Amino acid sequence: MSESLGVCYPRGFEASAIAAGLKASGKLDLALVVNTGRHVKSAGVFTSNRVVAAPVEYTRKLMKTASISHVIVNSGNANACTGQRGVADVALTVAAVAEACQIAPDTIGVCSTGVIGEYLDIEKLGRAVPQLVKALSCEGGSDASRAIMTTDTVAKTVELDCGGWRIGGMAKGAGMLAPALATMLCVITLDAVVDERALQRALTHAVNRSFDRLDTDGCMSTNDSVIVLASGESGKKVSESELTAQLTDACVELTRSLQNDAEGASHTIDINVRGASAESAAVAVGRTVARSALVKTAIFGNDPNWGRILSQIGTLDEQTAPFDPSKVDVAINGIEICRSGSIGEPKKLVDIASNRHVAIDITLHAGDANATIYTTDLTHDYVHENSAYTT
Amino acid sequence: MSESLGVCYPRGFEASAIAAGLKASGKLDLALVVNTGRHVKSAGVFTSNRVVAAPVEYTRKLMKTASISHVIVNSGNANACTGQRGVADVALTVAAVAEACQIAPDTIGVCSTGVIGEYLDIEKLGRAVPQLVKALSCEGGSDASRAIMTTDTVAKTVELDCGGWRIGGMAKGAGMLAPALATMLCVITLDAVVDERALQRALTHAVNRSFDRLDTDGCMSTNDSVIVLASGESGKKVSESELTAQLTDACVELTRSLQNDAEGASHTIDINVRGASAESAAVAVGRTVARSALVKTAIFGNDPNWGRILSQIGTLDEQTAPFDPSKVDVAINGIEICRSGSIGEPKKLVDIASNRHVAIDITLHAGDANATIYTTDLTHDYVHENSAYTT
Repeated sequence: MSESLGVCYPRGFEASAIAAGLKASGKLDLALVVNTGRHVKSAGVFTSNRVVAAPVEYTRKLMKTASISHVIVNSGNANACTGQRGVADVALTVAAVAEACQIAPDTIGVCSTGVIGEYLDIEKLGRAVPQLVKALSCEGGSDASRAIMTTDTVAKTVELDCGGWRIGGMAKGAGMLAPALATMLCVITLDAVVDERALQRALTHAVNRSFDRLDTDGCMSTNDSVIVLASGESGKKVSESELTAQLTDACVELTRSLQNDAEGASHTIDINVRGASAESAAVAVGRTVARSALVKTAIFGNDPNWGRILSQIGTLDEQTAPFDPSKVDVAINGIEICRSGSIGEPKKLVDIASNRHVAIDITLHAGDANATIYTTDLTHDYVHENSAYTT
Repeated sequence: MSESLGVCYPRGFEASAIAAGLKASGKLDLALVVNTGRHVKSAGVFTSNRVVAAPVEYTRKLMKTASISHVIVNSGNANACTGQRGVADVALTVAAVAEACQIAPDTIGVCSTGVIGEYLDIEKLGRAVPQLVKALSCEGGSDASRAIMTTDTVAKTVELDCGGWRIGGMAKGAGMLAPALATMLCVITLDAVVDERALQRALTHAVNRSFDRLDTDGCMSTNDSVIVLASGESGKKVSESELTAQLTDACVELTRSLQNDAEGASHTIDINVRGASAESAAVAVGRTVARSALVKTAIFGNDPNWGRILSQIGTLDEQTAPFDPSKVDVAINGIEICRSGSIGEPKKLVDIASNRHVAIDITLHAGDANATIYTTDLTHDYVHENSAYTT
């Protein structure tokens, strides 16, 4: 079996990974992705949490004015809630990469993921950087995707042939969820020739339709970052609409990988909201259902409990999601067990136990807008993983 | 040990309970509370869920124009999401009580709690009503408090001597939480001489400071109802401020009982938010922490994970809760483990394992407003109870 190329799938990219000692397990925990192409274009989308990790604060600010070619990612420590020392540690990380690569500091982005509220071991990290740089190669994408894992059980990569140009990528995280080792991180690479502002708009749209709609436990990390680097090495110019469509596909594929690997899940759940007055209303309805502990435990128990679904969407105010509760239909795995807000087909017709994937279709009869929210069930394993973590 | 008098503690009240066969277990499942006093005043506060059970719709509308003397409560079935048949079943319930008691239908309130999305067995209920009425006595408060239980492990009552007048009450529910058998129900009785509009204002205030601040899993029921009946039998006139203060005390005491008995909890958690810009901001901060699965699983795991707390309050927008993340302090059980948004006292100083009760103190340094939100941890037992329920 050939290893996935991940971020090295498009032309003009190199990557590497190393075990710097930040993870107690001794596994790979430091990765570098480099755009070696003729163009250096970049864009990023970051957490909307007001408590923001030092690397996010740094990289977000940098990318407002600069195009970056290098992204260094460490796992094992999020460098979040670490005050001034955290800020200094980011600067030291950047300086180490700049020196080892002989490049300007303002071309280097930084991402961190791992425990919140503990200081980064910057000496270990700094010592590892020269080796990390030496190891750069166009075959390093697979290692890099493993080095960014925390509670992930599998590495997540994407490779998309767009006809004359390519998208590659890697991501980690179990949704917005993950424990103190929080965070969804994603680095995407592509070799089309693109305008940088179009790239930012395309990425914002893609993230909005993919990662933003994965909601496994309603918890938003301090470190969530999605960065895209474009090398131009295919020589192919693409329209903004094609760029947007392909980037969205790549992000949805990575989102599916995150959903499938969500911590402790026994079912993946797609919540398809139809007939909403607006897309924002459809998203709000799907999201509130995705966040209901009662709905998620019911699915874990193979119980098509539509009463909990209806009760949950009833908590939304009318302005957010206009609909008439007495018109709502709910189907689970294709069986319409709730019709017009009341009892429909018998619940016993619904088979959840023998399907890992569950589709909940909610039809509001309030308009033409649709949206899908991706989530998972709430299980004993989730409670175990998230209660047994840092102590 | 003498049994609690509950709703029969104030003068001028009778209650009764019966096993009507609505619960498969054959336990008490139908209760009646009657104001036999010289005054018939009443007030109510109901769920803000847009999906509202038929009995709530009926009783809420009735109480806008009428004063009620009778409240009939059934457990075992919520009569929610039951369409027109649910509405008809409420009317049949009211008619049965009106006939058995020889009173006007518009003096009768109805509450239901139990499974959502199944029709009520109205024939069983109707057959039981005459016996229920015959059993009315001033010693029926304890039985009534047991008849309204669903997943509750203990009956919850309150008896408050206010000096010359009394408050009694009963409640059921595991917070806003409870499973398909959802719902928080509460009937409070008092024998002061009160103005009915003042009674409504006092109840609204009391509920706002008590039940509304209990948030064990963020799920709001279709059936939540709090009803107060006033008999005037003490002959004592009380000011609105005294009425408000005492009713609030009674409701907080019942709230504590609900918190202590929350489904599957191994810790009760008080989230004390201090130094907020406004009370609404303090409530919003406390509530978002109370709803974090990551915070709640951490406490279950005896882990004073302040990073998850800080990360969670960071998800609030600035308009809802203005504060500077870099100024926030967090203490757990008195140990200030997060100071100015960064690392404070060592986490190992915090003892959660040997305390069933956990106090999380969040100081925002943004003003003078405070609020406490009552919650519990997220445990294996919670997942078990809520996944194994209806199937």
